[in-house]
Order: sequence, then C-alpha cells, then structure tokens
Amino acid sequence: MTIPDKMKAFVLTGHGDMDKLVYHTDWPVPVAGKGEVLIKVNACGLNNTDVNTRTAWYSKGVSENTTGGAFDSADDDDATWGGAPITFPRIQGADVCGTVVAGPDSLMGRRVLIETWMRDWNDPLNMAKTGYFGSECDGGFAEYVKIDQRNVHAIDSTLSDAELATFATSWVTAENMLNRANVTDGDIVLIPGASGGVGSALIQLANRRGATTIAMASRSKHDAVAGFEPDAILERAPDNLKKGLRQVIGRDTVSVVADVVGGDYWPQLIDVLDRGGRYTCAGAIAGPMVELDLRTFYLRDLTFTGATIVPPGLFADLVGYIERGEVKSALAATYPLERLHDAQRVFIDKKHTGNIVVTMT
Amino acid sequence: MTIPDKMKAFVLTGHGDMDKLVYHTDWPVPVAGKGEVLIKVNACGLNNTDVNTRTAWYSKGVSENTTGGAFDSADDDDATWGGAPITFPRIQGADVCGTVVAGPDSLMGRRVLIETWMRDWNDPLNMAKTGYFGSECDGGFAEYVKIDQRNVHAIDSTLSDAELATFATSWVTAENMLNRANVTDGDIVLIPGASGGVGSALIQLANRRGATTIAMASRSKHDAVAGFEPDAILERAPDNLKKGLRQVIGRDTVSVVADVVGGDYWPQLIDVLDRGGRYTCAGAIAGPMVELDLRTFYLRDLTFTGATIVPPGLFADLVGYIERGEVKSALAATYPLERLHDAQRVFIDKKHTGNIVVTMT
Repeated sequence: MTIPDKMKAFVLTGHGDMDKLVYHTDWPVPVAGKGEVLIKVNACGLNNTDVNTRTAWYSKGVSENTTGGAFDSADDDDATWGGAPITFPRIQGADVCGTVVAGPDSLMGRRVLIETWMRDWNDPLNMAKTGYFGSECDGGFAEYVKIDQRNVHAIDSTLSDAELATFATSWVTAENMLNRANVTDGDIVLIPGASGGVGSALIQLANRRGATTIAMASRSKHDAVAGFEPDAILERAPDNLKKGLRQVIGRDTVSVVADVVGGDYWPQLIDVLDRGGRYTCAGAIAGPMVELDLRTFYLRDLTFTGATIVPPGLFADLVGYIERGEVKSALAATYPLERLHDAQRVFIDKKHTGNIVVTMT
Repeated sequence: MTIPDKMKAFVLTGHGDMDKLVYHTDWPVPVAGKGEVLIKVNACGLNNTDVNTRTAWYSKGVSENTTGGAFDSADDDDATWGGAPITFPRIQGADVCGTVVAGPDSLMGRRVLIETWMRDWNDPLNMAKTGYFGSECDGGFAEYVKIDQRNVHAIDSTLSDAELATFATSWVTAENMLNRANVTDGDIVLIPGASGGVGSALIQLANRRGATTIAMASRSKHDAVAGFEPDAILERAPDNLKKGLRQVIGRDTVSVVADVVGGDYWPQLIDVLDRGGRYTCAGAIAGPMVELDLRTFYLRDLTFTGATIVPPGLFADLVGYIERGEVKSALAATYPLERLHDAQRVFIDKKHTGNIVVTMT
C-alpha cells in the first residue's frame, strides 16, 4: 500500500483548555527509522493521562482536587507524569490498535497493539529512562504512528479494533497494581472508581486471580458495573464504609484497596484495611492531596504501593489474557477522531462506564 | 534463692498525666504458670510506647501533633498500639534485661533478654493475635516479671545490664524497618530522628548492611549522633532538604527514608525519594497527621511500609548481632526505678541521644 505524506491528527499545542487540542488534516506522517515500525491507527483509547498532561495536573504547583482548569498555576517544568517538561506540538493518545504498514516482514499487515512504556532497551528496568507513548513521543490520535519494534505486539482476537484499543493503558495499569499488591485468591479487594477503565479492569483481573472483589461506583452505574462481575457493589462513597462492607461481605475490613480515586474520601479507604493490609494506587481522579494518619499506617503494618511504570513482560501477559478470552473489553463509546473534543468532554464527565475510544474510519 | 511475695513496681492506673504512674513497694510478685519463666529484672529501658499508651496517643480520637496531654479527648476503646482497650492497673516497660529465678533448668540463673512480641504460638504469624509486653500484660518497671518461656533469650555479652536493656524495642523495630524496606548495600538511607533509640539503631543496622546512612538530628546532638557513625549528618529539618542532601552526598535524592518522626516536615521526606524509592515508618513523634500527595506516591512508583509487629526470628538475629559485637548500645542515662517520673520527663524532652533505662538496684 502507498503511505501518504500527510495525515489527520489531533495536536496538543500547549498546556490549557480543550482549545489547545487542535485538529489538522495535513500533519506530516511520521517516518519509521531503524528498528521502528509504522502503524496505521485503526482506533485509539482515551486515558486520564491525556487530560492530566494537557491540564498540567501532574505539576507540583497544582493541588486542586479537580481535573481540568488547573493549568493556570502549573509549573511547566514538571507537567508530565514523569516530572519532566513536555515538548509541543505533541500528538497524544496511548492505546492504539492498528495495522503494520512498514516494518519487518513478520509484522507487515498484522493487527497489533502497542506496549505504551518506552524503555531504554540497554537498561530496560531503569525507571528514570522510561517514557510513555503519547507523552514523551507522538501517540495515536492520528492516522499513523511510529514506534520501536520491541513495543509492537501482534494479536489474534475476535474483538473489534475499538475493543482492542481499551486495554493498553488501563488494563496494564490494573494488572501492575495487582502485582504490586501481591493479590492472590485469598484476598478481598476493594475497588473505588470501579466504573472507569482501570477500575473495570481491576475487577476482572482480580477475579481472574480468584480474589473476592468489591466495586465502588455511583448508584447510576451499578447495572453497568455488575456486568464486570464483582462479588459485591457499594456506593461511590458510603457514609459508613465499614457498615457497608459488613452488609455485603459480613466483615468490615478488606485485605487490599486498589485505588485510582484518592480525594477527601481517602482516609476511609485506608481505615478499612486489615492489619498487614495493602493499598495500591495508580491515580487520584478525585484529588491528589490526602490526609494520612501515620498511626493507622505503621501500627497496622500496612504496605502502600504506587503503580505507574510497568515492568517488561506484563504487556505480553495481557495479550495472552485477551487472546485466550480471559478478559472482556469494556467499550463505552466510540467517536471519530475529528470529534476528540466531544469524546474527551464525555470522558471527563465520568458519566460513562468503561473506556472511550476514537476511531480513524 | 528465695522469691519474695511483694516487690517494688511502677503501676499505671489509667490514661493521663504522669500522676497516673504510681510507685508501690508492696505490689504482688507475679507467679509463673506452666511454660512461663519468672525473671528478676535488673534493668528496663524506656520507649515511646510507654508514653503513648499512658497519654492515649494511639487513640483515633487524638490528632494533636504532640506527645502527652492528649488524653482528655482520648477514646479509651482504642488507646493502645493495637487498637484495643488497655486493662488497669498495668505495669509498663518492655526492654528487660534480667536473671531467670524460676523456670526450666536450661535458663535458671542465666542473664536474659525478653522478646517483646507475645504471640499465639499456635498461630504465630497472625498479627491480630499478637500482644506487646508491658501493654497487653505486665512489663518490666518492677522487680519481677513473668513471661512465656519462648520469649526468653539467654545472652552472653560483656555489656552491662543497663546497656542490654536498650535493645529489645528500638533495635528490633529498626531491624524490622530495614527488612520491610529491603535495605541492602546499594541503598542510601535517610534517617530522621537519628538521635533517638530507633534512629541510632537504624544508623548502625543500616551501616551493618553496607548502606549509606544520612542522619537527621538537632544541631546540638550532632556530636553524639556522629558516635553512631552515619556517613553524613543533616539538621533536624533543613529548609531545603534537597540542597542539604546535595551538599553531603552530591545528589538530591535517596532510595530509602526510615522514619519515626512524621509531622509537618513529612512531605519533604517523601519528596526526596528516588523513583521506585521506599519509605518505612515505625512512629510519628512529631505528629501522626501528614499530608500525602498521591501524585508523588504513584507516579514515582514509591513503596511505603508500616513496621510494628516483628516477625518471629528477628529477635534471635539481634541477640546474635549483640553477642558478636556487631552493634553497640546507645545508653544515654540510667535512673533508679523509684525515679521513673524523672526518667520519663527527660525521655519526653528529647534532649538526650540514645536510650534511657531504669535499674532495680
């Protein structure tokens, strides 16, 4: 096939409001270098990373407990997930399902997923040398992307391109959280924010390990969340979480909290952990600043693990789960690329359950 | 030898100020039951646990960032380290060095240390069934104590009784913290509160593992802290911790923070952790309520570990370190038992460096 010179792309021009995301129809198609693969994007999922980077939510100078609108006080030197400045213009979008159009014969024409963590392959475990696809390089809100061949995973699946574009960030993040917390079949896992991409993945991946799962979500989403088959569902923020737990599992503590929410409710999440319990976190959509009682923390021998950079190998595990049908996609809605603004507004509103994806066709 | 019926003892009569610690000269000597050992106490070290339990600092209802005086608002149902109510009268004091006067032949007449964690020996790893010597049962601020034989460790050492009474709580706690944080010879360990019992133990035990140690302490204590041989010493709370670190180790981050301080300065401690860094905590002498930025926590893949209940086996390791001379006691002062009030006032003032011990002779 012929590869054009120009493509459709949504380009982030700076930190700010939605108007910083600018649609182009004549953006240069990237050229794959040595060891790289050029992929025609079929679908690309949305993630909090896109919004957080645009609004500079990651910046140390920002402590508002909201997503969006915080960029006025942002320090641009510390505005990405990794604490480094971002280079503009930048095409965001990490969760790509596409077709290889230039690269090694073994991959040509294959449907592929992109492992989103870009490593220094001479030093792959060095977290300081790890970048994120769509943040430290251009991502998938465009018709074409290029990426190191070692990040490209061919996949055999009956799922659609849009369904396959729901996994890369949120599912890998969720599986990494469960690894960081050593979740096994003896655990009771409480999952705040269960209706989101990571939350719905946490339910399924913890169930896959045989753990007991308790989802927390707004009442309006309980039917949708039930589709991910948690063992129990609670409201988003019960007045008395211990009482709520007693009602659904007959005890008022859990062994693990797997959180992407944070916010004012956070101390209640910590307070229901068993002695020796584990808290793992990969986000703070309700606000990053939380109040910790060190007495609860040390006297109960708790373990807290942050979960961002995912070790090599985990993405391949996930591809296996998908190919064997052990997990199911939680596709909430698709939008054409041109309507990324609308897609992101719906995404930020958090009224949906599961993942939102833009498609290129 | 003849065991008397009555003994000298300091008895805690309730939560409150120092007047709740009442000296008796005719308190009943405990009677060792089956499987128990009776020990004549030679010396008993002071710990924050004594003060925190008396003042009900552990109580959830208390959030003042001070030690002492908080008991007015305490909830007595949650007033011990383990979250359970304490029974009065209670003899406190955990760090006993004594001589066995009743028990099995193998221990009779031996100088011994007491392992302070009391376990259900049918279920020794169950944290919910673990008690603390001098908290859930009577301890060593008295002439005699009884304890399960499995908690009694004979020791061969040239150290004095008072020196040997500095180890049981703070050193075991410190070693447990280093285990929880997986400290090895590649680590740089920052130690706030380095002048205290746990802090000075952390320096020596981290050095023993080959780690680089940076002690933080008030300037007036730097000479004394230098005696524990940290690789560098900083002030208690430098205005700019990163700058302070650069000056002494040529870099502005560390891999491990081993903390018993907490308080308002806490966010700065977390902010100097490397990506993938570890924070371990066994106390919060400057205040338990701290502000955590979940972004720092999860985006840097940090691991936080609380360290209270110590696994079986660690105490025996410590006895080995002492017997082989691998660690040295940090005895700051001794007081006769009758002057426990004075000893505890000095202890609370925190102007000393190392451990304070009461002796029975």
